[in-house]
Amino acid sequence: MTGATGFIGRNSLQPLLDLGYEVHAVARRVPARSPAEGVVWHSADLLDDHATERLVNEVGATHLLHFAWYAEPGRFWSSPENASWVQSTLNLMLRFHAAAGERAVLAGTCAEYELDCGFCSELVTPLRPQTLYGISKNAVRAVAMSLADVVGLSVAWGRVFFVYGPAEHPARLVSSLITRLLRGEPAECTDGRLIRDFLHAGDVASAFVTLLDSDVRGAVNVASGEPVSILAVAERVADIIGRPELLRPGALPSRPGDPPLIVGDIRRLEQLAWRPAWTLETGLAATVEWWRGRLRSASDS
Amino acid sequence: MTGATGFIGRNSLQPLLDLGYEVHAVARRVPARSPAEGVVWHSADLLDDHATERLVNEVGATHLLHFAWYAEPGRFWSSPENASWVQSTLNLMLRFHAAAGERAVLAGTCAEYELDCGFCSELVTPLRPQTLYGISKNAVRAVAMSLADVVGLSVAWGRVFFVYGPAEHPARLVSSLITRLLRGEPAECTDGRLIRDFLHAGDVASAFVTLLDSDVRGAVNVASGEPVSILAVAERVADIIGRPELLRPGALPSRPGDPPLIVGDIRRLEQLAWRPAWTLETGLAATVEWWRGRLRSASDS
Repeated sequence: MTGATGFIGRNSLQPLLDLGYEVHAVARRVPARSPAEGVVWHSADLLDDHATERLVNEVGATHLLHFAWYAEPGRFWSSPENASWVQSTLNLMLRFHAAAGERAVLAGTCAEYELDCGFCSELVTPLRPQTLYGISKNAVRAVAMSLADVVGLSVAWGRVFFVYGPAEHPARLVSSLITRLLRGEPAECTDGRLIRDFLHAGDVASAFVTLLDSDVRGAVNVASGEPVSILAVAERVADIIGRPELLRPGALPSRPGDPPLIVGDIRRLEQLAWRPAWTLETGLAATVEWWRGRLRSASDS
Repeated sequence: MTGATGFIGRNSLQPLLDLGYEVHAVARRVPARSPAEGVVWHSADLLDDHATERLVNEVGATHLLHFAWYAEPGRFWSSPENASWVQSTLNLMLRFHAAAGERAVLAGTCAEYELDCGFCSELVTPLRPQTLYGISKNAVRAVAMSLADVVGLSVAWGRVFFVYGPAEHPARLVSSLITRLLRGEPAECTDGRLIRDFLHAGDVASAFVTLLDSDVRGAVNVASGEPVSILAVAERVADIIGRPELLRPGALPSRPGDPPLIVGDIRRLEQLAWRPAWTLETGLAATVEWWRGRLRSASDS
C-alpha cells in the first residue's frame, strides 16, 4: 500500500490485516508508531523511479493499493505535482507488473466526472475533468486500465467523493468547522445549499479493501450514495457540539459555477456486498469526539 | 527536438534551420551523418528521468518539438512502452518548464478521435481513443495542456494522420507496396475502399515547424484534408512504377471494424498560412524514386 500514512491509507491497514494480507506499507517517512500492529513499513519516495523499482522488487507484492498522490489542501487542484504523480503512478504500475503484480486498486476521484451532471454513475456519466488534478487522475485511469488489458493485470479504480473523519487535515471543511466550534469561535459559512456525498474515511478505506479483495475491474464509485447539503452537515456538527448559535450560514459568498449536486451511484460498490459502518450521524459524532480529545490534550500540554 | 532521427523529426531539421533557430537534436543514438548541416546533436535516453533532466538543463532551449515515442510498426498500438512514454513526456515537460522553456509543440495522433465520426475536427469531434497508443497520447495531451495553463507555458499539440514519404519504415503500407512492386512481386491488398488522409513527411514536418513558430495553443490537425481511398493510393503507386498488373486488390480480407473514413479538418492549420509542398501525385512519385535509388544501391553493393 502506498500513501499509507494518508487519510485513507492509514484507515485501510487494519481491514487488510483482518483479511489475512501480509501488509507492506509505503510512505515517504515511516511513522514513529504504526497505526496498526503487524504492518511492514517501507520508506520510499515514489517520485524517484529507481526508488520505486527497488521497493517493488524488494516487496514482491501480488496486490497493490495505491493511494499516494499530492494532496495539499487548496493547492492540489492545480499543482504541477499532479503531472509528477501521473508519471510515478504509471511507473509504479509498470514495475508492479514486471515484478509479481496480479491485482491493483488505484484511487481516483469524482472530479473525473462532468460534475454538472450531478448524479455520477460509472457507466453512464460523461467524464470531463476540469482541473489539473481531475485531468491527471483521469489520464492515469485511462492509461492504467488500457495497460492492464494489454498486459493482463487486474485493475480497479476507486473514485473517491467527499471524505471526512477523525484526523483529517485541519484545513478541510469538516475538520475546520469542528475545531472552530469547539474553540467557541463563530463559523462563517456559505449558504450551504450545495448537495454533496460524504463518506467516513473508515468506510472509504473498507471499500478500497473490499475492491482489492474482489475481481471487479474498472471504475467503481467509493461514496455513500446519500445526498446531503453542506448546511445540513454544518448544522449536525453544531448540534453535536451544542453550539448552533455560532454557525453563520450565508456569511460567505458561494463560489459561482460550483456544481449544485454531486452524488455517487454506489450500485457497483454494493454489488461487492460492501456496506458502510458509519452513518453521517455516528461518523460526525465520532469525528467531533476525536477533535475534542485532540484539543484537550493540546491544551493540557 | 526529440525523436530527431525519426520519420517526422529528421524532416523538420532543415525547416527549423531555415527559420533561423539554433537547433539541438536529441536521439538515443546520434547518426553518423547529420541529415542537416549546423544541427547540434545530443545523445540521450528520454526514458531515463535523470538523463532528461541533464539534457534539458544543458541545452536550455526556449522551444521544444517533441516527436520521440515508441513507434515500432505493428507493435506500437498496444505496447506497454506507451505508458513509459506518457511518463517520459510529462517528465520532459516539467523539466523544460523548470529550465528555460517557453513554447512546446508535441506530436499527437488522429487515433485520439472517435474515428467512427470520420471527419475529425479539433473543436467538434469527440475524443474516444480505443488503443493503448491513442489513449496514452490523449492522456499526455490532457495533462500537458492543463499543466501548460497552470504554469503559463505555451503548448500546441499536432495530431498526425497518415504519413508517407521517402525513408519510411519498410513495413509500413506505402513503403512495402512500393518495394514489392519495384521488385516485380505481386502485391496482395484488401479491397482498399477505406478512405484516409495522407500527407508527405516533409509537409508533416513543415506543419510542425509552422506550429512551433506560431502562438497557437491546443490541438491542431496535421493532415492534408483530402480524402483518398487506399485503393487509389495503391493504383497511383502501381501506375508510377508501371506495374498495375501486379496489384491484387481484394486478395486480403478487410479488418472488420476499421473506420470507413478518416479525414482531418485542416482549417486551424491553414489559418497559420501553412500550405503543403507536395501533392499526393508528386509525393508518391518522389517516394518511388527514393526507393528505386535505395534498391539499386542495395543490389549494386
